[in-house]
Amino acid sequence: MTEVKISKVGEQMHELITILYPICRSITGNGVRETLDIIKKLIPLTIYEVPSGTKVLDWTVPKEWTVRDAYVKNARGEKIIDFKKSNLHVLQYSAPVHKKVQLAELREHLYTAPDHPDWIPYRTSYYMERWGFCMSHNQFISLNEDEYEVFIDSTLENGSLSYAECLIRGELTDEVLIFTHTCHPSLCNDNLSGISLCVYLARHLMQQKCRYSYRFVFAPTTIGSIVWLAKNESSLHKTKHGLVCTLVGDTSNFTYKRSRQQNTEIDQIVEYVLQSKPHKVIDFFPFGYDERQFCSPGFNLPVGCLTRATYGKYPEYHTSADDLKLVKASALQESLEVFQEVIRVLEANKKFINQSPKGEAQLGKRGLYTDVGANSQNVNSQLALLWILNASDGSQSLLNIARKANMKFDDIKNAADRLLGCGLLKENKDSYLQTTLSKI
Amino acid sequence: MTEVKISKVGEQMHELITILYPICRSITGNGVRETLDIIKKLIPLTIYEVPSGTKVLDWTVPKEWTVRDAYVKNARGEKIIDFKKSNLHVLQYSAPVHKKVQLAELREHLYTAPDHPDWIPYRTSYYMERWGFCMSHNQFISLNEDEYEVFIDSTLENGSLSYAECLIRGELTDEVLIFTHTCHPSLCNDNLSGISLCVYLARHLMQQKCRYSYRFVFAPTTIGSIVWLAKNESSLHKTKHGLVCTLVGDTSNFTYKRSRQQNTEIDQIVEYVLQSKPHKVIDFFPFGYDERQFCSPGFNLPVGCLTRATYGKYPEYHTSADDLKLVKASALQESLEVFQEVIRVLEANKKFINQSPKGEAQLGKRGLYTDVGANSQNVNSQLALLWILNASDGSQSLLNIARKANMKFDDIKNAADRLLGCGLLKENKDSYLQTTLSKI
Amino acid sequence: MTEVKISKVGEQMHELITILYPICRSITGNGVRETLDIIKKLIPLTIYEVPSGTKVLDWTVPKEWTVRDAYVKNARGEKIIDFKKSNLHVLQYSAPVHKKVQLAELREHLYTAPDHPDWIPYRTSYYMERWGFCMSHNQFISLNEDEYEVFIDSTLENGSLSYAECLIRGELTDEVLIFTHTCHPSLCNDNLSGISLCVYLARHLMQQKCRYSYRFVFAPTTIGSIVWLAKNESSLHKTKHGLVCTLVGDTSNFTYKRSRQQNTEIDQIVEYVLQSKPHKVIDFFPFGYDERQFCSPGFNLPVGCLTRATYGKYPEYHTSADDLKLVKASALQESLEVFQEVIRVLEANKKFINQSPKGEAQLGKRGLYTDVGANSQNVNSQLALLWILNASDGSQSLLNIARKANMKFDDIKNAADRLLGCGLLKENKDSYLQTTLSKI
Repeated sequence: MTEVKISKVGEQMHELITILYPICRSITGNGVRETLDIIKKLIPLTIYEVPSGTKVLDWTVPKEWTVRDAYVKNARGEKIIDFKKSNLHVLQYSAPVHKKVQLAELREHLYTAPDHPDWIPYRTSYYMERWGFCMSHNQFISLNEDEYEVFIDSTLENGSLSYAECLIRGELTDEVLIFTHTCHPSLCNDNLSGISLCVYLARHLMQQKCRYSYRFVFAPTTIGSIVWLAKNESSLHKTKHGLVCTLVGDTSNFTYKRSRQQNTEIDQIVEYVLQSKPHKVIDFFPFGYDERQFCSPGFNLPVGCLTRATYGKYPEYHTSADDLKLVKASALQESLEVFQEVIRVLEANKKFINQSPKGEAQLGKRGLYTDVGANSQNVNSQLALLWILNASDGSQSLLNIARKANMKFDDIKNAADRLLGCGLLKENKDSYLQTTLSKI
Repeated sequence: MTEVKISKVGEQMHELITILYPICRSITGNGVRETLDIIKKLIPLTIYEVPSGTKVLDWTVPKEWTVRDAYVKNARGEKIIDFKKSNLHVLQYSAPVHKKVQLAELREHLYTAPDHPDWIPYRTSYYMERWGFCMSHNQFISLNEDEYEVFIDSTLENGSLSYAECLIRGELTDEVLIFTHTCHPSLCNDNLSGISLCVYLARHLMQQKCRYSYRFVFAPTTIGSIVWLAKNESSLHKTKHGLVCTLVGDTSNFTYKRSRQQNTEIDQIVEYVLQSKPHKVIDFFPFGYDERQFCSPGFNLPVGCLTRATYGKYPEYHTSADDLKLVKASALQESLEVFQEVIRVLEANKKFINQSPKGEAQLGKRGLYTDVGANSQNVNSQLALLWILNASDGSQSLLNIARKANMKFDDIKNAADRLLGCGLLKENKDSYLQTTLSKI
Repeated sequence: MTEVKISKVGEQMHELITILYPICRSITGNGVRETLDIIKKLIPLTIYEVPSGTKVLDWTVPKEWTVRDAYVKNARGEKIIDFKKSNLHVLQYSAPVHKKVQLAELREHLYTAPDHPDWIPYRTSYYMERWGFCMSHNQFISLNEDEYEVFIDSTLENGSLSYAECLIRGELTDEVLIFTHTCHPSLCNDNLSGISLCVYLARHLMQQKCRYSYRFVFAPTTIGSIVWLAKNESSLHKTKHGLVCTLVGDTSNFTYKRSRQQNTEIDQIVEYVLQSKPHKVIDFFPFGYDERQFCSPGFNLPVGCLTRATYGKYPEYHTSADDLKLVKASALQESLEVFQEVIRVLEANKKFINQSPKGEAQLGKRGLYTDVGANSQNVNSQLALLWILNASDGSQSLLNIARKANMKFDDIKNAADRLLGCGLLKENKDSYLQTTLSKI
């Protein structure tokens, strides 16, 4: 991680994670609702409830799962597993059970992480009905022959799936989608970190005048993005760029997973912004987080996934060790700053048309030409002017030009502002339209 | 050469070469007919005779050459060169001669291979009338001043050029062309090896139900492929893939020469199949074997050339050392297996359209989703499912997908079969049509 | 620099530079006229005068500057700076002045090159009115407190800008543009070398029958090329290739700066010709010499810039050290030979259509096929025949084919001539038209 001056916001982001940590979330149910209610105190949210049984694309919204209590007691009546101590102890979507079993039978319903024997794994069984407990491997191997009382007070009933949107309207109806998943119980990096970042990114954008509209979606993974896609299918043409936000609280270097289209504007911008930090970029693959839904061939949206740790590749992934200590205020804040920088570049990354494209425009008469005895900074800004004028045929974004000129985006951006100021540039507002038409 | 368990077929292939070895073949004449008659005992053949003088593209079918005997005797009446001992001794298409000559005159009609002084070179003079003998360089330099009797009992008369086809009909009228040349006399690698491989490959395919139709062509090089192209010009659109088969009996590593189009499906498949062996791939160049005719700009067919030794680059090339010892049963068999594997992949390399392309299809409800506690092999097969679904927009073949996913073709193929089984995929039978249309 | 046998022409080129060296040129005025009059004695020139105030694209033709005398005297009446000794001493386009000033004021009007303290820099102030002198930095720091008399006898008045063209008509109306700038005073490499090369290149072409028409333009930099573009806008479609010619007299390795389109025919040819010498190739950038005007997005002509030293990167650039000693007869001659070779390849770099594209043409019956016992040079020329026939579908130039075949251009060219001779090739005269149409 590169050094970050910790300001209040990193601490606030960590604080929000701390508040949300104990809640037992799942893909449906009151844990998610409680979470959304807390978020709603910080940013404007529209909350949607989609009834169990609703057909969404190839899927069906599942029944709502509620767990009130769960434990395993030994013959002496001691609780050796207690849901109240960690909500990871219960297999998610576990069926209810209350009976006495011998060790052999109990073992068939126990899940552990042998490679990390002190940690409780996080396991789910959304689409097959079974009951089960998760526990540390060390405790598992210490279990004696005994009669155990197993008790899970859960219900799986018709209800609804909850998700929420925060829409920040900009000058354009073109939208940027920021998706974060809300279905994990007491796991911090995956994904209270993503939730917290989205909340503070939304608050940041609300204080600004944006060109794009920004749509933050808080929803359970897989079924949540599928619900959202199904409900918004007719307006997906508005989604011009998107990012899935998760794993942003640990101290690893950044990872960017490209969209399926590989070289979209959001891909280019994230890769440009990350250039200043140690990071890695990986090509799209069809598993991971909800980018797999946005990038399914029927939608193929320009949505990448920007994380710190890499999906499935950090030791604490889906275990009790993904806790409040794993995520750091400084890391959260640096991640927020990266997302803010991506958006800053995206907002400014317009395409222009040189209004005096025949021969070089005379910069001198417009006060843009550096005089005899210029210093090197002036020379640099002048080269930026020349690069923009030469490249701006309406098809090249400022970032394209910066890369071709091997200059910083901001140097190109500032030069473009000066050229706009004297009428030598005009924004090509039809560039999306043209791109689309050229594909036909 | 990688290790191959020798079964009966390798021995059989070598045996066929042994039978065909003594026959004096040329681009026309009874040697070719005798050869085709032997092949016809092993596979169904349609034999064509094209009369001398027939105009074929830019060429004319030549007269038929017959040689009955030939020798050089010294003054003592000893045969120092005897056609009956090696049919390479006579310059192919040599004019008849019978006279006494001094050494100086004789020398002008002798051809040797100075770099390999023990070997008799193979030389031809198809299109210029002259007489000549080939001999070892060592014998050549030991010749004394003497009067020699030279005798070549040959005729060049109107007749016909013989070639044959073995067509194995598949489900489609789309064809795969396998071409092998039949015009060389006692040379084993070039090209009794190719003839033998084609015979046993045809026998292999006859035992199967194929998607494509396979057309094996046994014909003399250059004029033979030109005859075939001229006679089949109106149906060449059916030739979707092709390979020229020669130099497959020596123990060198494999060589693949790409088609002129460079990256056709057959090119991709041969390169994929050869990945598991030491080999080299070279770009198309307009000389070599009959691929130069198939890949002439007026036809530009997707035909590559798959060999072991590289054209013209092995020492025994076109000499008496290209004999029964140079070709090995094990090498022949391995070559056959490579051709069989190429065809196996080609047969299976379909393009599919995901029938549930919006969002990820729910694999769980179709029994395709691995449950909690899956082993790594299951995980791999599941990733294959996801890759196929994500990539199958009708334009990507299974091999394309395997390469993108960095997985084995068979893993992708098996996964595709499972998806087909539950209706999630449909073959894109119009993919050729679409490819053609997209070029217009 | 590779070794060059110096013939008369290198010496003549240097002699012309010596004659033109003392003249005080600027972007307008009698210095340019005097220069063009001398050139006109060597090649046919059409001289154009464009009045001050004429609107040209985004620019206006400036007033004409005349300087008759200029000096700085110290209090003892000694001329410490004297225009008559070097015309670089006066800031170009300097306003007139005649007054007495103290050292502090004088210093504000003095320009030096501190990195090269013995050299006088060349400075201009075309578009802002000021007066000034240039001098060596060593002299500058030795100036004492004193009262100085500054005198510049200059005028800036309505007049005209002078430029000239030498058109050598070829078989086609398609033109090759060779542009060289004429506005620099006593500087040899930049750009008396370019002027001299153009003169002797034009003389060379006048002795030949050319396919293309060649238009040499002698004009001041920036405003001169802008004037030319403005006046010739309606006929720019005829400019099929172009080069800016400057910095061709020093002994550095060659530098080629590609056109904005990056891979046009002229780019390919220059890069091919330079392969035999140490050189560097750089991508287009929108500053440098007049290629920036020709390659502005509204014109985007296929014009590169072929130099020895790299623009702005040699120490003597724009100083009094860019003198008669910096440019060498041998270097000038080698540069001329490179330009001649570029044009020789360009003239011959046609596209052909194989008239017998189906199968290989029978070379033997046309006497093009090498017989038994061929030497390796014959083999090479035969491969050239095969490459051309295989590649000539009308879209590939001979240079494209040479690069694909990894052969010399001349080997391919000679083979093409043989194929033309026997009717196997036909020139594709519509290739430009087709290229244009395929872009629509």
